[in-house]
Amino acid sequence: MSQAAILTFDELKALIAAILVNAGLSPLAAGSVAATIAAGERDACKSHGVYRIEGCLRTVKAGKVTPDAVPQLADDGSGVIRVDAMNGFSGPAFELGAPVVAERAKTLGVAALVINHCTHFSALWPEVETLTGMGVAALAMCPSYATVAPAGGARPLLGTNPLAFGWPRPGGDPYVFDFATSVAARGEIELYRRAGKTLPEGWAVDAEGRPTTDPAAALDGAMLPFGGHKGSAISTMIELLAGAMIGDMTSTEALDHLGTTTLAPHHGELILAFSPETFAAGRGDPFAKAEALLEAIAGQGARLPSQRRFTARRKAMAEGIALTAEEMALLETLREKGLDAVAAG
Amino acid sequence: MSQAAILTFDELKALIAAILVNAGLSPLAAGSVAATIAAGERDACKSHGVYRIEGCLRTVKAGKVTPDAVPQLADDGSGVIRVDAMNGFSGPAFELGAPVVAERAKTLGVAALVINHCTHFSALWPEVETLTGMGVAALAMCPSYATVAPAGGARPLLGTNPLAFGWPRPGGDPYVFDFATSVAARGEIELYRRAGKTLPEGWAVDAEGRPTTDPAAALDGAMLPFGGHKGSAISTMIELLAGAMIGDMTSTEALDHLGTTTLAPHHGELILAFSPETFAAGRGDPFAKAEALLEAIAGQGARLPSQRRFTARRKAMAEGIALTAEEMALLETLREKGLDAVAAG
Repeated sequence: MSQAAILTFDELKALIAAILVNAGLSPLAAGSVAATIAAGERDACKSHGVYRIEGCLRTVKAGKVTPDAVPQLADDGSGVIRVDAMNGFSGPAFELGAPVVAERAKTLGVAALVINHCTHFSALWPEVETLTGMGVAALAMCPSYATVAPAGGARPLLGTNPLAFGWPRPGGDPYVFDFATSVAARGEIELYRRAGKTLPEGWAVDAEGRPTTDPAAALDGAMLPFGGHKGSAISTMIELLAGAMIGDMTSTEALDHLGTTTLAPHHGELILAFSPETFAAGRGDPFAKAEALLEAIAGQGARLPSQRRFTARRKAMAEGIALTAEEMALLETLREKGLDAVAAG
Repeated sequence: MSQAAILTFDELKALIAAILVNAGLSPLAAGSVAATIAAGERDACKSHGVYRIEGCLRTVKAGKVTPDAVPQLADDGSGVIRVDAMNGFSGPAFELGAPVVAERAKTLGVAALVINHCTHFSALWPEVETLTGMGVAALAMCPSYATVAPAGGARPLLGTNPLAFGWPRPGGDPYVFDFATSVAARGEIELYRRAGKTLPEGWAVDAEGRPTTDPAAALDGAMLPFGGHKGSAISTMIELLAGAMIGDMTSTEALDHLGTTTLAPHHGELILAFSPETFAAGRGDPFAKAEALLEAIAGQGARLPSQRRFTARRKAMAEGIALTAEEMALLETLREKGLDAVAAG
């Protein structure tokens, strides 16, 4: 019988990594995926926390990800650093490419990290945050799988296509946002369905393309982009830049490839890195100017994105990460049974 | 007494250029600004058409723009091409830098065009469209002046901060979007005020930061970003990248500099150029993959952004651009009286 527990960040990370190694992940991949999942718990992003482990194991069991892939970096000295994830998880590929693209951005001003052929497993904020820690601003985007109708359309075609941005703030938490370009995440609609609640207007259409507030009909139909035609245009741009342009799957291709939305999506990712010092080129201090803006936003009482996350993080690092008895039981089961604990899909 | 007329694109451009030269613009600046305004009329974007000429002349008369500035390009061979507009209109600066950044993108994969110290005079779609004609995808953004409150805030701080993107479609019109990151443009709210109509919910707050549907109260207060906190985050990113990072004005600084929202804003601009072939690097044909996506969007009956504009353009190029008697009278007055026809503010 498992009991609720309070773990340090490192304890939680080690526990998750052990589960993942037991399921066949290489220590490299396990460490990377575990760090991301533990960071989700630490930052009180439960939707990216320990409940993600099962999806990871199911994707391994379904044979849709190579759990011990070794990513390969190709650098021709240009502004594009390419990492082939070799059908593995995106984390190790990102970690291989991140310091290279940060350095290249400092040399060229702007540089891009392209990750190909990966199973994307995490929010994008851990990545842009890592890059801000290397002194560069970063804009990251990737397709997902086709669950979102374009504005004015009726059928799933776009993904929830996240967009994330980070700006380094010397001496403080970075400015970071990370959001789906759909109005809501698919998981949120699932929560409404389980709770027997109707959806807010404008979240989704049914299988015939008609607006619906019925979560079940929405899950059979399509989600809608945030911000109407503007969000739809941004989501389309993400398909073009982080799918077509980098020679990787669009969200429609990713869904065809997987055949389900219950596994972690396979596709590529595009991350742009910018060196503020190189851009400013002596025209004042870009960080000081940014502080004036960000302080003015906070000074109005408007919350900066990720502020809630950083607050939760400080608390977790000081007091530990509290897991419920149910969560501890899940971790125990996964550690004992490995891939036998999950279905292949 | 002026009469309604139908002009060819070139006739309209020449007429506008003559007005601008008469107002002190160099032939270089006049040609560039005239081409942009004529393109607005051609594409049935009346809000960027001949009525913009007065704003241009008022900005000249107020001494806030150098009408005969000669832009200066600096290229250190890196990924950042810098053009100092020398306090002139943005058009000539963009035209100087565009072929250089397109070529650099083809070499490095990604490159940035930074325009500093300019009066921005136009939508961004003419710029991203020009770059698609050079074979590259482009993402353009700039601050404006502070008229928009951040999500959760109460006072103007952000600009309407446009974001525009273009993707080349071989043999067809490019995929182009260009929109304000505010829910509405300030001009739209002004039209509601003149018509005595109430605003839709969610467009604006009053001077005390309370939601309002009164256009006059909204103009005294602040507009709101599109898409809630997501649009607000994107607008903030634009201030950081195309203001702080490039060593140019944020929207708050631009408003302080001008002291009014009735003149064309002074600030910088950031344009990212991407070479799809360089990025794809042999991983399939990025344009063919993009076509599959864009045709699937259109195949659902969803309109691609700019489609209405391209349709209007074809009609205008075939049949000419129809101007009303009132518009012709305005052009006649501006040509005759030059800067005497407008107020300095």
